[in-house]
Amino acid sequence: MISFHYQNATAGRVGSDHGLSDVELDEAIARTGSLCSRFAQDAEKGTHGFMRLPRDRSTPAGVSAFARENRGRFRNFIQIGIGGSALGATAIHAALSHRFHNETDARPRFYVLDNVDPEETRALFDVVEPRETLVHVVTKSGDTTETMAGFLVALRRLKDALGDGWKKNLVVTTDPGKGFLRTFAREEGVPAFDLPEPVGGRFSVLTPVGLLPAAMLGIDPALLLDGASAMEAKCRRADPRTNPGYLFALVAHLLDTKRGKRIHVMMPYARALRDVGDWFRQLWAESLGKNPQVGPTPMLALGTTDQHSQVQLFNEGPNDKYVILLECEKFRQDVTVPEALPANAPPAFLQGRTFSQILAAMKSGTETALVQNRRPNATLHFEEISAASLGACFYLLEAATLYAGWLYGVNPFDQPGVEAGKKAAFALLGKPGFSPTAPLPEDPRYVVV
Amino acid sequence: MISFHYQNATAGRVGSDHGLSDVELDEAIARTGSLCSRFAQDAEKGTHGFMRLPRDRSTPAGVSAFARENRGRFRNFIQIGIGGSALGATAIHAALSHRFHNETDARPRFYVLDNVDPEETRALFDVVEPRETLVHVVTKSGDTTETMAGFLVALRRLKDALGDGWKKNLVVTTDPGKGFLRTFAREEGVPAFDLPEPVGGRFSVLTPVGLLPAAMLGIDPALLLDGASAMEAKCRRADPRTNPGYLFALVAHLLDTKRGKRIHVMMPYARALRDVGDWFRQLWAESLGKNPQVGPTPMLALGTTDQHSQVQLFNEGPNDKYVILLECEKFRQDVTVPEALPANAPPAFLQGRTFSQILAAMKSGTETALVQNRRPNATLHFEEISAASLGACFYLLEAATLYAGWLYGVNPFDQPGVEAGKKAAFALLGKPGFSPTAPLPEDPRYVVV
Repeated sequence: MISFHYQNATAGRVGSDHGLSDVELDEAIARTGSLCSRFAQDAEKGTHGFMRLPRDRSTPAGVSAFARENRGRFRNFIQIGIGGSALGATAIHAALSHRFHNETDARPRFYVLDNVDPEETRALFDVVEPRETLVHVVTKSGDTTETMAGFLVALRRLKDALGDGWKKNLVVTTDPGKGFLRTFAREEGVPAFDLPEPVGGRFSVLTPVGLLPAAMLGIDPALLLDGASAMEAKCRRADPRTNPGYLFALVAHLLDTKRGKRIHVMMPYARALRDVGDWFRQLWAESLGKNPQVGPTPMLALGTTDQHSQVQLFNEGPNDKYVILLECEKFRQDVTVPEALPANAPPAFLQGRTFSQILAAMKSGTETALVQNRRPNATLHFEEISAASLGACFYLLEAATLYAGWLYGVNPFDQPGVEAGKKAAFALLGKPGFSPTAPLPEDPRYVVV
Repeated sequence: MISFHYQNATAGRVGSDHGLSDVELDEAIARTGSLCSRFAQDAEKGTHGFMRLPRDRSTPAGVSAFARENRGRFRNFIQIGIGGSALGATAIHAALSHRFHNETDARPRFYVLDNVDPEETRALFDVVEPRETLVHVVTKSGDTTETMAGFLVALRRLKDALGDGWKKNLVVTTDPGKGFLRTFAREEGVPAFDLPEPVGGRFSVLTPVGLLPAAMLGIDPALLLDGASAMEAKCRRADPRTNPGYLFALVAHLLDTKRGKRIHVMMPYARALRDVGDWFRQLWAESLGKNPQVGPTPMLALGTTDQHSQVQLFNEGPNDKYVILLECEKFRQDVTVPEALPANAPPAFLQGRTFSQILAAMKSGTETALVQNRRPNATLHFEEISAASLGACFYLLEAATLYAGWLYGVNPFDQPGVEAGKKAAFALLGKPGFSPTAPLPEDPRYVVV
């Protein structure tokens, strides 16, 4: 369903200054290949929360039942959440819905509110009528500031529009036992799904965080889990040479730490997979970017669009990048360039070609140029884009993140580096228990007006 | 209108290992400050194409006249272009239109086709009816492959729907004299605007490439140019200490080359400015990423959204980034968090706060944490988001790019590193004059299925 091709990251292709030699790969595998058994054991026991999800069949059943009852009632669906509570839902929607879903007749229309931008928030409520809207509030802790701000706005609007009936337009996903949102849902009798405690936010796409919006869009959550399950079996393989989770992590880790490829670019050649890249950006950055100053910097680029924006830099700028190209073998729809000009017109050579051929040629051209310029790269090849292949991709990258955490020697499940900024913001907002520190005075010498 | 605040990039704030000392800034200004006079002279003469645009008043007048005649006729507007022919139009639309413009009653609805994705292209023509659609084809060279593919699809559909009337639904912007699209427009009598020869694609937002879509959206192109003109005056200032274009470039260049801050993150705390960041990503990457392996790598992040995705990495990962925060003082609309919960509920501390206050507190918190972690950063402060401030921002960043080109010693106006990939793709597509090379054979040892 998905295969990983890393020959262009080897010395044979890009030279030993920038690519990995066979000896080096052999040695690294000899040294760290036993992580595959460790992963298999952990997966067996469900040591890490995300590992328990592919085999869970009651959650998709519950989510599907909820969607069956509610899908026809609503013109709009809004997910209020941020970070891991938004990115997975967005990625599923982008991969599996119509590109202009909200402008078709499909229902419900789909929105994600993952910011506290005043103009965006106002604009959202310009186009959705609360009565016709199901609001899904998602927060692991139960009180994420941005999510609570959006929730309060939505709750007020639902109450104003529906009186006591507001509870029928709200559903939440949060920790099963703890936090404000859980208490609220229990006390008010609002339907609530579980974000199981051991599953971190950025590993939560295969919980109701991602499965409920999927089901509301008519996507079968069980298919996402089927794909994840098939990939889980591969990521448990004891033979490191055939284990895609381990090898994805190993190549990335070696290129970063041994060849200075500190920037890991994910570049899908399929618009539908763009937001998988954005989801991965959080997963890779927040899991691996840790004290003491380690971790690759993930970047997102889109083929072919960003060939006209970033590829100049990738080919001639600092050789500090590892580009992971995503490609799709068979698109769900294709377009043939029609006969619209005489055969002697310069663009006529395109007539009769399909868009998928052009996209594939562009991807191949980029790959060729990267190799010529000795820039290591690899390809994640999708046979097709489907709920199953997407579920497989999510699990592959989550497994790779755990393997990478082990290789980098960091805990991929925490995020201590976001606390300082939160505290400073809370103090400014007058949150009880946080006392403001004096703002840093600004010296006008460093201001240009 | 826009001010640049760089104290957080100084040694006084983040220490001398990561920030710039006063002595170092003084020396750098003594050494390179004369570039300000060079810029002023060049601007006076119009040496570089983009410098001629702010004072051009006939182009906005022509574009506005075209929009007045045509705006009411169309339900849809599609810009077909890629790279510099798409990013500026997208940035203007995102900054100055309703966030969900296409779902409001506003006309025309607005689309940018900047890829050859088969599914996306099909999806676009699912939701637009060719008869009701104005297609704006934009390519500097006149025959960009992706743009031509989209153009051929659109042209066929217009001809099929409208017969001989198709010309009324098409307008092009391209080189005034050269290239296929110019010839085509001349021969067929299609309305055509000029992308003046000396203006590079990524510097073209203030030509009809960006001004025509602006005018079609009801945005006055003259206001964009007014803002650019005001900023041009600042970027010509002979005193380097007060010249925002020079200082923006100098701080970035010194942090990259003297402190290893090779990744330049633009992080708007305003959803409306997100795509200005995407536009800047092309400008900075393609202009400065040059042989011999120089140039910073631009990244885009969005506040507060990416606090939950990237900030962990920014605070604790490798100290190799310079974060340029964008903030807006006065939003066009605000939202007050309503009373929706009892005062003892944990999120109730937010009630009565405005979203712009929360966003500002979050930005300030991020800034504080970056400083505590000794990560250099700066702020580009917008009094408001308007056509004028946006025009000023475009010009500021273009001027900074030229200054940075001088500082890095590269030509910011070429992009030789994209040719190899294009040639390989052309060969695969059978473009006359390009012969295919044998594809690199794949060794199954480096494939994981």
